[in-house]
Amino acid sequence: MDGGHTMKNNDPERVLLDHGSGGRLSRELFSRLMRAEFSNPLLDAEDDAAILDDLPPGRVAFTTDSFVVDPLFFPGGSIADLAVNGTVNDLAMVGARVLYLSVGLVIEEGLPMADLARVVRELAAAARVAGAVIATGDTKVVPRGAADRLFINTSGIGVVPPGVSPTGSGARPGDALILSGTLADHGMAVLAAREGLDSAGGIRSDTAPLNGLVAAILAACPEVRALRDPTRGGVATAVNEIAEKSGVAVELLEERLPMRPPVAGLCELLGFDPLYVANEGKLLAFVPPDRAEAVLAVMRAHPLGREAAIIGRARPGPARVTLCTRIGGQRVVDMLVGDQLPRIC
Amino acid sequence: MDGGHTMKNNDPERVLLDHGSGGRLSRELFSRLMRAEFSNPLLDAEDDAAILDDLPPGRVAFTTDSFVVDPLFFPGGSIADLAVNGTVNDLAMVGARVLYLSVGLVIEEGLPMADLARVVRELAAAARVAGAVIATGDTKVVPRGAADRLFINTSGIGVVPPGVSPTGSGARPGDALILSGTLADHGMAVLAAREGLDSAGGIRSDTAPLNGLVAAILAACPEVRALRDPTRGGVATAVNEIAEKSGVAVELLEERLPMRPPVAGLCELLGFDPLYVANEGKLLAFVPPDRAEAVLAVMRAHPLGREAAIIGRARPGPARVTLCTRIGGQRVVDMLVGDQLPRIC
Repeated sequence: MDGGHTMKNNDPERVLLDHGSGGRLSRELFSRLMRAEFSNPLLDAEDDAAILDDLPPGRVAFTTDSFVVDPLFFPGGSIADLAVNGTVNDLAMVGARVLYLSVGLVIEEGLPMADLARVVRELAAAARVAGAVIATGDTKVVPRGAADRLFINTSGIGVVPPGVSPTGSGARPGDALILSGTLADHGMAVLAAREGLDSAGGIRSDTAPLNGLVAAILAACPEVRALRDPTRGGVATAVNEIAEKSGVAVELLEERLPMRPPVAGLCELLGFDPLYVANEGKLLAFVPPDRAEAVLAVMRAHPLGREAAIIGRARPGPARVTLCTRIGGQRVVDMLVGDQLPRIC
Repeated sequence: MDGGHTMKNNDPERVLLDHGSGGRLSRELFSRLMRAEFSNPLLDAEDDAAILDDLPPGRVAFTTDSFVVDPLFFPGGSIADLAVNGTVNDLAMVGARVLYLSVGLVIEEGLPMADLARVVRELAAAARVAGAVIATGDTKVVPRGAADRLFINTSGIGVVPPGVSPTGSGARPGDALILSGTLADHGMAVLAAREGLDSAGGIRSDTAPLNGLVAAILAACPEVRALRDPTRGGVATAVNEIAEKSGVAVELLEERLPMRPPVAGLCELLGFDPLYVANEGKLLAFVPPDRAEAVLAVMRAHPLGREAAIIGRARPGPARVTLCTRIGGQRVVDMLVGDQLPRIC
């Protein structure tokens, strides 16, 4: 083996170990797939790091997330949509406008090249929709059996405009809690796709970039206290996190929780509590009580917030989340403990 | 399943799916392992993104890399060292001083908790040595068989001081090519560990953060043309990349290539060309000819550059890399085509 011309496998329809070698085949794959879709001056420089010459004023925000969802493609989206939107949304939750993304792919040898091409195409499309530039990337290929098809890591850089600082510790007693739309769509869509359920019910992932919705909220209410996207662990876990960090109690009203009927039906059928099921295009906002109606109005005017609702209220601590049920009872809503749905994102 | 108290497995010695749920067990794992080792105000805020308030003036650099090395621990280092140093070095190669890192872990269910704890400890130690702050992170757990033990993605943010701009397209005819030390140590150390060879030979990975060495080079020669760390694909591939991007020919002198005897011996024994074997703590520098001796002197004065050598020279194009062999012959050195060693980093 002199590194010259050892070809173990020539199948042009599948990803080969050699595509992850860092050598000529890696470059060919990059040129053919990634550069064609992602092309921009930063990536095209092909240096070891991208130089971001033009960061606007403001505090820089930085986040990372890995995506291991199974299956790769599902009604309403794909691992590529999640990877872009998940990181865009993590930036949006601290008030940052996304600017740049990195994309790290870990690919199992033998992945159909068509699947990789589709993922790359969808990464590029999702980044365009969110207004993000893919500035840097990396591809590794591992032997068959060492990974399940494809994992994606994205990291993101954004800038927080002056005067804005939502944080998970910012909720105050009296704040209204707004949820931007229906519960549990993403988790149930992936589960249905995985298990071959609901071919007719039309359950679709809600994966979406929330930066536009957050910009609208911040314009109406720069003093928004806390923002969180209720992904893994669902609304119950995200609200518990904010309650703990802010030292407030939170009361949720079951009758206010928006849900699509087929999603509610599938949760019921399979015994899932929708409060714990992952969402990928929803946000929770704690806002001062006198701004709640104004924020609700701008959210409902946005395509991703049409079904926004005030679902609860912060109370003086101790930190605890309770649900007022439809029949007038009350129960404690804990953080997720077990993992209901592995590989949901 | 109400998300409340479903515990499928209680083995405290191994990572459980529930540790990747995003719920309470995820937070416990984070608090116990990650926060204890990585603790800093950015990470401790536990918001969806870290706010970097204090970026110094200069152009911001951004890079990402995934690490899938097998085995996780090997003589001279571990996947954790590679993950930190690899990203620190990618930043250093564009002249950037590393400031912040992200860490994304994809863990296979059942990974011994001791291995995870060791990786987290070594990530923290490597970041301290490099002077980087781990600002943000993410942990996913996939079911047994869906990944091989542990993969790590790191992304990095650094700042390039004014007046500095090494780039892969910057080499000019006449430039001297300096290699900072011995060839092929990392690749041969991992291979030896994987195959159970060389228990006595003392072959060790060269994994190291090169930001200090680069700072010394830039102080002596701010006009350094091109820097590259010859990782996957080795020196041959990295030099070919620069030759192509810069439009120069490069002549390498075999007799000048520094190598440790046990590494040379193992390459010989197994039929590997050391020019294609990965390094993880070495750099290539193209420098103007009249600065070569000065740069060589500062490199040799640095602990990571003691065996630095001028290994070749850039010539007028076309882009092509040739090796002048010890016996006076000449051969073309192509970029790596096949993958000699999957999962080397």
